[in-house]
Amino acid sequence: MERIGVLTSGGDAPGMNAAIRAVVRCAAYHKIKCMGIEQGYEGLINGEIHPIRVRDVGSIIQRGGTILRTARSERFMTPEGRHEALEQCRKNKLDGLIVIGGDGSFHGAWELQKLGMPTVGVPATIDNDVNGTDMTIGFDTALNTALDAVRRLRDTAHSHDRLFIIEVMGRNCGFIALQTAVAGGAEYAVLPEYGLDLNRLCSKLDASRASGKNYSLIILAEGVMSGYELQKKLLEKGPQYKATVTVLGHIQRGGSPSSYDATIASRMGAYAVNCLIDGTYGVMTGLQNGHMVPVHLPDTWEKKKMLNPELLHLVEELSI
Amino acid sequence: MERIGVLTSGGDAPGMNAAIRAVVRCAAYHKIKCMGIEQGYEGLINGEIHPIRVRDVGSIIQRGGTILRTARSERFMTPEGRHEALEQCRKNKLDGLIVIGGDGSFHGAWELQKLGMPTVGVPATIDNDVNGTDMTIGFDTALNTALDAVRRLRDTAHSHDRLFIIEVMGRNCGFIALQTAVAGGAEYAVLPEYGLDLNRLCSKLDASRASGKNYSLIILAEGVMSGYELQKKLLEKGPQYKATVTVLGHIQRGGSPSSYDATIASRMGAYAVNCLIDGTYGVMTGLQNGHMVPVHLPDTWEKKKMLNPELLHLVEELSI
Amino acid sequence: MERIGVLTSGGDAPGMNAAIRAVVRCAAYHKIKCMGIEQGYEGLINGEIHPIRVRDVGSIIQRGGTILRTARSERFMTPEGRHEALEQCRKNKLDGLIVIGGDGSFHGAWELQKLGMPTVGVPATIDNDVNGTDMTIGFDTALNTALDAVRRLRDTAHSHDRLFIIEVMGRNCGFIALQTAVAGGAEYAVLPEYGLDLNRLCSKLDASRASGKNYSLIILAEGVMSGYELQKKLLEKGPQYKATVTVLGHIQRGGSPSSYDATIASRMGAYAVNCLIDGTYGVMTGLQNGHMVPVHLPDTWEKKKMLNPELLHLVEELSI
Amino acid sequence: MERIGVLTSGGDAPGMNAAIRAVVRCAAYHKIKCMGIEQGYEGLINGEIHPIRVRDVGSIIQRGGTILRTARSERFMTPEGRHEALEQCRKNKLDGLIVIGGDGSFHGAWELQKLGMPTVGVPATIDNDVNGTDMTIGFDTALNTALDAVRRLRDTAHSHDRLFIIEVMGRNCGFIALQTAVAGGAEYAVLPEYGLDLNRLCSKLDASRASGKNYSLIILAEGVMSGYELQKKLLEKGPQYKATVTVLGHIQRGGSPSSYDATIASRMGAYAVNCLIDGTYGVMTGLQNGHMVPVHLPDTWEKKKMLNPELLHLVEELSI
Repeated sequence: MERIGVLTSGGDAPGMNAAIRAVVRCAAYHKIKCMGIEQGYEGLINGEIHPIRVRDVGSIIQRGGTILRTARSERFMTPEGRHEALEQCRKNKLDGLIVIGGDGSFHGAWELQKLGMPTVGVPATIDNDVNGTDMTIGFDTALNTALDAVRRLRDTAHSHDRLFIIEVMGRNCGFIALQTAVAGGAEYAVLPEYGLDLNRLCSKLDASRASGKNYSLIILAEGVMSGYELQKKLLEKGPQYKATVTVLGHIQRGGSPSSYDATIASRMGAYAVNCLIDGTYGVMTGLQNGHMVPVHLPDTWEKKKMLNPELLHLVEELSI
Repeated sequence: MERIGVLTSGGDAPGMNAAIRAVVRCAAYHKIKCMGIEQGYEGLINGEIHPIRVRDVGSIIQRGGTILRTARSERFMTPEGRHEALEQCRKNKLDGLIVIGGDGSFHGAWELQKLGMPTVGVPATIDNDVNGTDMTIGFDTALNTALDAVRRLRDTAHSHDRLFIIEVMGRNCGFIALQTAVAGGAEYAVLPEYGLDLNRLCSKLDASRASGKNYSLIILAEGVMSGYELQKKLLEKGPQYKATVTVLGHIQRGGSPSSYDATIASRMGAYAVNCLIDGTYGVMTGLQNGHMVPVHLPDTWEKKKMLNPELLHLVEELSI
Repeated sequence: MERIGVLTSGGDAPGMNAAIRAVVRCAAYHKIKCMGIEQGYEGLINGEIHPIRVRDVGSIIQRGGTILRTARSERFMTPEGRHEALEQCRKNKLDGLIVIGGDGSFHGAWELQKLGMPTVGVPATIDNDVNGTDMTIGFDTALNTALDAVRRLRDTAHSHDRLFIIEVMGRNCGFIALQTAVAGGAEYAVLPEYGLDLNRLCSKLDASRASGKNYSLIILAEGVMSGYELQKKLLEKGPQYKATVTVLGHIQRGGSPSSYDATIASRMGAYAVNCLIDGTYGVMTGLQNGHMVPVHLPDTWEKKKMLNPELLHLVEELSI
Repeated sequence: MERIGVLTSGGDAPGMNAAIRAVVRCAAYHKIKCMGIEQGYEGLINGEIHPIRVRDVGSIIQRGGTILRTARSERFMTPEGRHEALEQCRKNKLDGLIVIGGDGSFHGAWELQKLGMPTVGVPATIDNDVNGTDMTIGFDTALNTALDAVRRLRDTAHSHDRLFIIEVMGRNCGFIALQTAVAGGAEYAVLPEYGLDLNRLCSKLDASRASGKNYSLIILAEGVMSGYELQKKLLEKGPQYKATVTVLGHIQRGGSPSSYDATIASRMGAYAVNCLIDGTYGVMTGLQNGHMVPVHLPDTWEKKKMLNPELLHLVEELSI
C-alpha cells in the first residue's frame, strides 16, 4: 500500500473533514501517500485528483462540509462510468480507495470493489440510516442543531400559547426525529417507521392541554409528509389544532462537528486506512458497542437499521 | 408613583424577559410595586394581573420569550375594549403602565395614554422597524441566529456547488436581511425597500461564477416574496439559476438574548420606570447614539425608519 | 410503590434537571407521587422535602445545574446522620429513593440501601468516572464545552504562533482530556492514567514544529497537575517551550445539556423509576452498549473504569 | 493608489479576518492590488509580503484569529526598525498601508505616517479601549463569549449556593467587565476605573443574601487584580465571603465574529480603503453614532475612553 485515494460522496455531513484529516494523517503516519479526489465519483471519472498532504488538512477538523466537495454522479451509475473511474484509479496508481458517505455511496464503493479496486467505506450522513454501525458521522451534530432550534421555538410557542410542527430531516428514517423529540421534550414524534395516526396525535394534544400545558411541540420526520401537509390535516380535525410550521431544512447539515462526531470521524478515518493496510477490503468502518469493526459493504444496506423502541415509549411517558 | 403594571405585546423577542426583570427590579429599587399583566392587552382586559416581585424575575434575564406571555387582542381594537382595559388599570390601582413590544403595541399604548393612563413603551421586536430608536430589543439576537444559520448553509452550499436562497424575517423592512447579507458575506440581498430586480440579481450571479466562486448565497427578506417564489422566478431565467431554499422562520424569534440585547433591555426597562417617575408619559424609551431618550409615541410609527445605504453598497462591493 | 423521593448530590452536571423531569414524569405516568429533596443528603437529613409535580418540571429539560440544588454533607458521613436521613424517608412515607450523582453519592445510596431503604442511583457527573456505565449524564456536554474552548484558543494560538496548555476537568480520570485532545486535534494529552513524560512531550513538540506547524495545543487533565505547574516544567526545559495556560474551570459544569445528555438523562430517570417499581434495588441505571441495565451499586466504584487505548494512540497518529 | 498593504498587529480579535477580507475585496473593486504582510510590523521589516487576492479571502469572514498572523515587534520600536519597515513598503511599491489592531499598533502606524507612508488604522481589539470609535472590532464577540461563560457558571453557582468571582479581560479598562455584569445580571462589577471598595462589595453581598438570593456573581476586570487576589481579600473579611474563582482567559479572544463584529469589520475595512483613495491619511476608521468618520491617529490614544456611568448605576439598581 503506497498510495491511496479519498473522496466524499452524497449529502455533506459535519465531520466529513475530520474524517478526511484522519485518513491523510494516518496514511502519512504509515508512510502512505494520499490523493484527494474532488466531487465524489464524478470527480473520480473526470480525473480531478491531486495530492493532499499533512499540512493541507491543518485545522479542517472543525470545519463543516467537505473540502473535497461532493456531488451526485449520473455517469457512475453506468458500467462505462465505473470503468472510467477504475481507469483513473489505475492511472493515478491508487492501491486503495476510501469512500466517505452514506449507503448510496457504499453501493458505488461495492461496485468498484467488485471490479478489483480495494475499497473501504466510512459512514457519514446526518440521517444515521446505515446498518452495521451504531452511529454515522454527522448524526450527533445534526441532533444538536435540531435540538437548538427546538429550544428556540419552545420560547415562542410558550410565549404565544401555540402548537408548533417542527419538520426535521432523516430521509426515510426517524432517527433524528425520535431523539429530538426525547431530548427536546416534545409531545409527539411522527415517524416514517410507524406512519401518522392522526386520531392518536389529536388525543395526545387534548390530554396535554387538559393537563395544563399551554403549548405543544410535534416533531415530524420529513419522510412521512411535509410540515404543511400535517398542518392541513390537523386543521381539518378542528380549529384547536391550528399549528405553526417550521421546516429546519439544510441548517441541519452544516456547522462544526460536535465532540462526538469529531471523535468518531477521527477513529473511522484512521481505521479505514488500517483496514486497507491489513487487506480488509469491501467493508465499512462500523462502530459497534464502542469498538471499530469491519462490516461487509452489502450488509450496510441490505438490512434496515431499527429505531430503539425504548425511546418511542419515552416520548409518550415523559410528555404527560 | 406607587404601583405600576408591565405587559408584553405582539410577537415575542429575545430580551423581553430581561426588560421585564429591569422594570421589576428598578421599580423595587424605587419602592414601587409592580404588577405583571399576562398575555398583553387581552390579559389586561381580562384582569389577568398579579404581583411580580424581585425574586420572581431571578435568572430570567437569559431566557428567551416572555414569562408574561403575549397575544394579539381583537377586543382592544375597539373603544369598548380599551375602556375595559382602562377600568382594569384603575381597579388594580396602576399609576403607570409599561408596554414592551413593537409599533403595533405602541398604537395601543398611545390610546391608553390618550385616555389618561400614564404609559411608556419599550421597543422589543426582532424586526428593528421602530422609528426613533437605533436598535430594538431582540434585533441583535435575531441577527446572530440568522448569521449562524447562514454559516451552516454555506458549508453545504460550498460542498455541493450550489445556489442558496435564505429567507429571513423582518416584515416589511430589510434590516435583518441587509445586515445578514453583510455579516454573512452573501452575494445579494433582496429587500422590501428596493424590491426585486431580477436581471440585476442574475448578472450578479453570473459575475460571481465568472470570478471563480462555486456557490452563492442570496438573502431574501420575507417582505418581498417567499423563498419559493424567488426560486421559481430564478429558474424561469435559466437552469443555471437553480436554487435551494431555506426559510429560517420562527427560530429567529427565540433563544437567549445576546449581550447587546440583554444590555439594552436592562437599560430600557430601567429607563421606562424612571420616565414614569419623572412624569414623562406617552413616550417610547429610544436609544439614540448610545443615549436613552424619550420619543413621543406617535413618532415611532409615523415616520419610516430607513436602512443604512452604506450597508447596501457594501454587499455589492465586498461580494466580488 | 406509592411515593418516591429524588435528590441530586455531589457536583452538578448538565442533564441533572432532565433526569429529575424524567423521574417525576415517569412516576406520574405510573400514578406514583414524587417528593423533591433539596440539597442532597444534607437536605434529606434536614427534612427539606416537598412534593414535585408534573407541571413543576415543565421546560427544565434544557436547563443546566439542578433545580433541587446539591451539597456535600458532613453529617451523612456519620451513622447518626444516615439514621436521621432514614427517619426522614419514613416520616415522608417514601417507598423508594432515587439518587442522581457520581460515585461519592452512590456510596451514600448504598448505605441507605443497606439500612433497608430501596434506592436506585442515576450516574450524573461530567467526569465519566463511574464504572458500569458507558457514559454518565453531563460528560458529553462537558466535552462539547471544552471543545468549543479549544477551538477558540486555536484561533489565538495560530495567530500568535504559540504553545497553549489547556487544563480541563476530570478529577483523577482522563476521559475529558483524552476525547478533547482527539476531537480538538491537539498535539498531546497529559492524563492521570499515564502521568507526565516530559521528555516525550518535548520530543513531540519538536517534531510538530519541525513538520511545519506554527502552534501546538496540549490538553492537560487536572488530575495530573495544574496548568501552571506544567508551564513551569516546560519552561525549565528551554525557552522554546514557553506556553500560555488556560484553565477552563467551572464553565465545563454548566450549560444546557447536549442532545445526547438530555436523551440519556431521560432514559435513565425513567429507568430508575421502573427499577423501583420492579423491585430492583441497590443498583445504578447503567448504559451498556446502548441498553439500560441495572448495575450493583458497589460495582460502580470498586473497579476503575478504563480509558479507550485506541483514542490515546489516535492523538499520536493524527497530530503528525 | 495602485497597490496597498494590509497587516494585523497586537492581540488577535474576532473579526480581524472579516476586516482583511473587506480591505482586499474593496481594493479589488477599485482595481487596487493588495499585498498581505505576515506577522505585523515584524513581518513588514522582514519583507514577509505576498499578494493577497479576492479568492484568497473567500469564506474567511467567519473565521476567528487572523490569517496574516500577528506578533509584537521589538525592532519596530527603534528608528532603525521603522526605517527598514519603510524601505520594505517602498521596495514592494505600496502606495498605502492599512494597520488592523489596537492603540499600540496605531502608535506604530503614526510613526510610519510621519515618515511619509500613507497609513490608515482599523480598530480591532476585544478591549474596546480605543478613543474615537464607539466600538472596536472584536469587543461584541468577546462580550458574548464572556456572557456565555457567566450563564454556565450561574448554573453551578445556583445549584451549589455559591459566590463566584469571574475574571474577564480588558487590560486597564472595564468595558468588558461592566457590560458583562449588566448583561449577566451579576451583583457587582470591580472595574479599573473605580478600583476595589471591599467594604462596599461586602455590604452588597450581605444585602443580596438578605434579600433571599442563594448565590452571587462578581465580575472582575483583570486590570484591577487577579481573581485569586480578590478571593483572598474576601476570605479575610469572613468565611461567608468564600468564593470560587474562574479566569476566563484567552477563550475571550477567539471564535467566529458576531453579526455586529462581522458587520463593522466589513464597514471599517472598506472605509479604510476609501480613506486611502481619498487621500485621508494618518487616521483611524472610527465608528461614531452609527457613521464612519476619520479620526486623527494621535487622538485615539491621547484621550482615555470613558465608561458609560449609566451602566454602572444599572448594576446596582438591577441586582437588588
